[in-house]
Amino acid sequence: MAQDDIKAGVSRRQLLGSTASVAAVAGVTSAAGGAAVATLGGTLATPADAQTKAARPVGNKAEVHPGELDEYYVFFSSGQTGELRIVGLPSMRELMRVPVFNRCSATGWGQTNESLKILTEGLLPQSREFLAKQGLATYLNGDLHHPHMSFTDGSYDGRYVFVNDKANTRVARIRCDVMKCDKIIQLPNQHTVHGLRLQKYPRTGYVFANGEDRAPIPNDGLVLDEPKKYRSIFTAIDGDTMKIAWQVMVDGNLDNVDADYQGKYAFATCYNSEEGVTLAEMMAKEQDWVVIFNLKRIEEAVKKGDFKEMGGVPVIDGRRGSPYTRYVPVSNSPHGINTAPDGIHVVANGKLSPTVTVFDVRLFDQLFDDKIKPRDVVVAEPELGLGPLHTAYDGRGNAYTTLFIDSQVCKWNIDLARRAFKGEKVNPIIQKLDVHYQPGHNHTSMGQTKEADGKWLISLNKFSKDRYLNVGPLKPENDQLIDISGDRMVIVHDGPSFAEPHDATIVHRSKVNPRHVWKRDDPFFADAVKQAAADGVKLTQDSKVIRDGNKVRVYMTSSAPAFGLESFRVRQGDEVTVYITNIDDVEDLTHGFAIINYGVNMEVAPQATASVTFTAHQPGVYWYYCSWFCHAMHMEMKGRMFVEPASA
Amino acid sequence: MAQDDIKAGVSRRQLLGSTASVAAVAGVTSAAGGAAVATLGGTLATPADAQTKAARPVGNKAEVHPGELDEYYVFFSSGQTGELRIVGLPSMRELMRVPVFNRCSATGWGQTNESLKILTEGLLPQSREFLAKQGLATYLNGDLHHPHMSFTDGSYDGRYVFVNDKANTRVARIRCDVMKCDKIIQLPNQHTVHGLRLQKYPRTGYVFANGEDRAPIPNDGLVLDEPKKYRSIFTAIDGDTMKIAWQVMVDGNLDNVDADYQGKYAFATCYNSEEGVTLAEMMAKEQDWVVIFNLKRIEEAVKKGDFKEMGGVPVIDGRRGSPYTRYVPVSNSPHGINTAPDGIHVVANGKLSPTVTVFDVRLFDQLFDDKIKPRDVVVAEPELGLGPLHTAYDGRGNAYTTLFIDSQVCKWNIDLARRAFKGEKVNPIIQKLDVHYQPGHNHTSMGQTKEADGKWLISLNKFSKDRYLNVGPLKPENDQLIDISGDRMVIVHDGPSFAEPHDATIVHRSKVNPRHVWKRDDPFFADAVKQAAADGVKLTQDSKVIRDGNKVRVYMTSSAPAFGLESFRVRQGDEVTVYITNIDDVEDLTHGFAIINYGVNMEVAPQATASVTFTAHQPGVYWYYCSWFCHAMHMEMKGRMFVEPASA
Repeated sequence: MAQDDIKAGVSRRQLLGSTASVAAVAGVTSAAGGAAVATLGGTLATPADAQTKAARPVGNKAEVHPGELDEYYVFFSSGQTGELRIVGLPSMRELMRVPVFNRCSATGWGQTNESLKILTEGLLPQSREFLAKQGLATYLNGDLHHPHMSFTDGSYDGRYVFVNDKANTRVARIRCDVMKCDKIIQLPNQHTVHGLRLQKYPRTGYVFANGEDRAPIPNDGLVLDEPKKYRSIFTAIDGDTMKIAWQVMVDGNLDNVDADYQGKYAFATCYNSEEGVTLAEMMAKEQDWVVIFNLKRIEEAVKKGDFKEMGGVPVIDGRRGSPYTRYVPVSNSPHGINTAPDGIHVVANGKLSPTVTVFDVRLFDQLFDDKIKPRDVVVAEPELGLGPLHTAYDGRGNAYTTLFIDSQVCKWNIDLARRAFKGEKVNPIIQKLDVHYQPGHNHTSMGQTKEADGKWLISLNKFSKDRYLNVGPLKPENDQLIDISGDRMVIVHDGPSFAEPHDATIVHRSKVNPRHVWKRDDPFFADAVKQAAADGVKLTQDSKVIRDGNKVRVYMTSSAPAFGLESFRVRQGDEVTVYITNIDDVEDLTHGFAIINYGVNMEVAPQATASVTFTAHQPGVYWYYCSWFCHAMHMEMKGRMFVEPASA
Repeated sequence: MAQDDIKAGVSRRQLLGSTASVAAVAGVTSAAGGAAVATLGGTLATPADAQTKAARPVGNKAEVHPGELDEYYVFFSSGQTGELRIVGLPSMRELMRVPVFNRCSATGWGQTNESLKILTEGLLPQSREFLAKQGLATYLNGDLHHPHMSFTDGSYDGRYVFVNDKANTRVARIRCDVMKCDKIIQLPNQHTVHGLRLQKYPRTGYVFANGEDRAPIPNDGLVLDEPKKYRSIFTAIDGDTMKIAWQVMVDGNLDNVDADYQGKYAFATCYNSEEGVTLAEMMAKEQDWVVIFNLKRIEEAVKKGDFKEMGGVPVIDGRRGSPYTRYVPVSNSPHGINTAPDGIHVVANGKLSPTVTVFDVRLFDQLFDDKIKPRDVVVAEPELGLGPLHTAYDGRGNAYTTLFIDSQVCKWNIDLARRAFKGEKVNPIIQKLDVHYQPGHNHTSMGQTKEADGKWLISLNKFSKDRYLNVGPLKPENDQLIDISGDRMVIVHDGPSFAEPHDATIVHRSKVNPRHVWKRDDPFFADAVKQAAADGVKLTQDSKVIRDGNKVRVYMTSSAPAFGLESFRVRQGDEVTVYITNIDDVEDLTHGFAIINYGVNMEVAPQATASVTFTAHQPGVYWYYCSWFCHAMHMEMKGRMFVEPASA
């Protein structure tokens, strides 16, 4: 409805106005608790609605004028693009791309020695060998899902963003002080990693990674088409060391995961309880599970040695019947699982069922003590519509669930759902809003923390179809920004995105405080500093060439508009390492180093050192140039690499 | 000034209103010609300004509400990111990324057989050999500059966008019916390619590519530090065949290039007339040149054989004194060169000089007939400010020049500049607008065609500094959208962009009409169709495995939510080619094919076939899955590749 208004050409400002009171009213009702909010809801809400028709202050400010700053950082996964994206909200402008699993032509990610160290050191031996046979040091692709910021005491602490690679079973960490990836590990025993979320309390702490597909352990070819011998693995990584703390063997295929606000439990949706290998087999049963992991019991088991060491890590048997897990039956193929900011409720989303299942984490202790049955932890199961995938929260007792098949977001009230579950004649559904089209993940501002502020909702829609100028058979996806500050959701922006939004985390700008220039003692380029010291070179002062057998190390400063060396000379076949140190101490003055026809290019941000190693196979004169615009004379910032022919 | 208003929080709508009359007035004055516009200008403009204070209609509509479409496509280069970007204007939303010179994790560009054919077939033998020694089939990086759409009769025809790679001396073509790159060639003799522009009349026709750096020919290492033996090359490519038509050897370093609206001349700015190799040497002289190429004379020379064949192409000697070129002296290190929509004027931008030099192309015939001296083709040389880099046009007689050092866009009038050059006391400068910060290229809507409409200007600024939330040492650049429909320029939007905007072309949506699904007879995947036919496989129907010695061809359909094969079996060491044919005939229903831990992923758009070849080095069970979200059961769209151990 709101949208038809927009299509009818009513200005965004008017629309925001028209939903305004909501903010105010919600403010009041949130104090009064969820139940009060419910009285605003859908069919039940006539009195409150009438009341809210009164004088309306302005809703969320959706426009960001030139020179103004966004209020939130959004950390977007890029799916199969393999990078992390930083977007500003509410403007929905992409502020930066952070290469992680992809090969980046602009920054040299995947080519510089600094990035290759990060991309290779955490690979499994089997993968390293596999890649070496292809002449590769690392993978050139990834499928980046589920970026989440590290927590302290239930809210974001601005230290790290953690992400996973579904394509090659990796987990990576991005440092938020410089917005660069600093660690990547590949998970043993596990075959792909899908869901990833973090320990919220007391801090991160654990990074939980769901093994989705069942596969043999070890996966060496001795077991092939024997699905009964396949296993699924749940992994907990220590976010501080990026080492695997422990793994748990489970039944079924793990999908999404979340954790509580008490630091006691993690829980994952689990499909394919049939343990089939075909679509038909995976869909056979009426029910699958939510698997609950008891962190304290698992930690004790690791201490007392109740595990099998596999692939160098402790693996606990958490299949049905174990003391470490509980399997709560839910409808077939549940998908998203989301903990509410109230610290009490957890919602598992039905996907193939029109319902979502609401758990009360306060009951989990009794479940593990076998005082109650698995289904006794379910406190509500409202029917919302077709294809519920993910649920977000506003901190006012309301939940927002994406309905993939209906192409809608359903706003509903948790307390009303509990009352309905007990048999009371109340309708928990407050509003259904059309989105465009087929929403997957959705997110509210700070909504995955105890500081959910109920201002914004992003719906990450998988198809855009006719929403943008036609760009050919491959279309963008569509990230829609929705104002939820009022009682009615209002779409204020359509944001096209290249494959694939997939998932996002909305963090208030007050939580993030990056550096403007690098610190010279940063570990990111410590190896270069060390090598320079060994060669008696001061990186910030010296530009010189060190020959060491057929290895040549070329040290060069860069200061707009000139490199420290106007030329350097090597011999065909030499292994050449070029170290560039950007000695400009000016914010935003990044240099680049590219060698023409040599396939070499890298970024060197202010006060950073970057290095690249290559073999000088091609004789001749090759100009190198600054590839990141730096100065009026940027085009003249260049020099020559002389490669003497081997014959010479 | 307009901007302070914005900072002061005045709404964008008000600002647009406040510049409104301009559109109307300009409409009138454009009929009356540039001179009339001038009376609106800067200090001279008091009467007209007063007059324009009258009733103001609404200016450009800058907001694009959810569900509304943009009016223009903008084809952005991405610089060192190596891709082409398609952006909507005025919303400035990125609608699509088109991989060209980069390795794309999402689409498999650089991995699929279809993309590898395009990336490899046009490589020079020397580069192919160089890359092979590194175990590479092609380069993994590029520096994409200067995207321009093909012309027919002086305006865009929607066939192709051409781009160049400064890093590895390549030129590429993007098909606008499917928005995919279909041809890439590497240029012989030339060392890097910087400026690229197209023949405007009668059609494209020629793609002109400037060789920037001077290097030995051949560049085989026999000549190293002997700059006097270095050469610069100007290349004309046949845009229809993507073969090199001819090259011209020139003096100096070619920078940017443009062509006339008569199909007779191309012209390039040329710095380093000193032919030095260091910054100091390149800056020594007071003057450099604009080099004019006489297309008819060059074509005749090729016909009658007045060329030397080098690297398999005809190279004409166009150094100073030749009948094929003229060298017009201009101030030191000119940068951009831009032909005005009037078909008469060409502006070379001074960079190190505060002036721009205006040529009248109607005088070029006489210059080549030696009836006038080189400088006689100069009809104006206004002083605009510090660091003039590029000039755009509104079709109303006004020019918009970026001032890199001043961080401004200067709006000036061509006719007034001509009159001032003749000694009349008139000031051609109409307005200077602060931009943020350090603008490089700029572009007006349709401004590089005879259909310039004078509505929008984009200023591509190299630094953003404090304009966005801080994302660490590496900052986005800043593409600012400016409403030029009135007499005063007004900034309406700041657009952050990842490295690097560099250049863009603004095309009205009426000129572009892409397909929604692929045609099955598209040449893009013709090789796959041919191989399938040879194997007796119908790609749109059959899913089967063909073994051919140690080569295995796996043919699979994809139709949401299932692949045609639930599993397939190969032996360790087999060379496996997987062909996926997306038989869904639904707009926007793209599938993907990824193999876990095998580093394989590719896009398969509706009705397309994509293929990937790899060696099955790793034994075991490897799940493949659909990596482009397609269906509620997308996560269950998967299968197993069994790799039998070589020992087995």
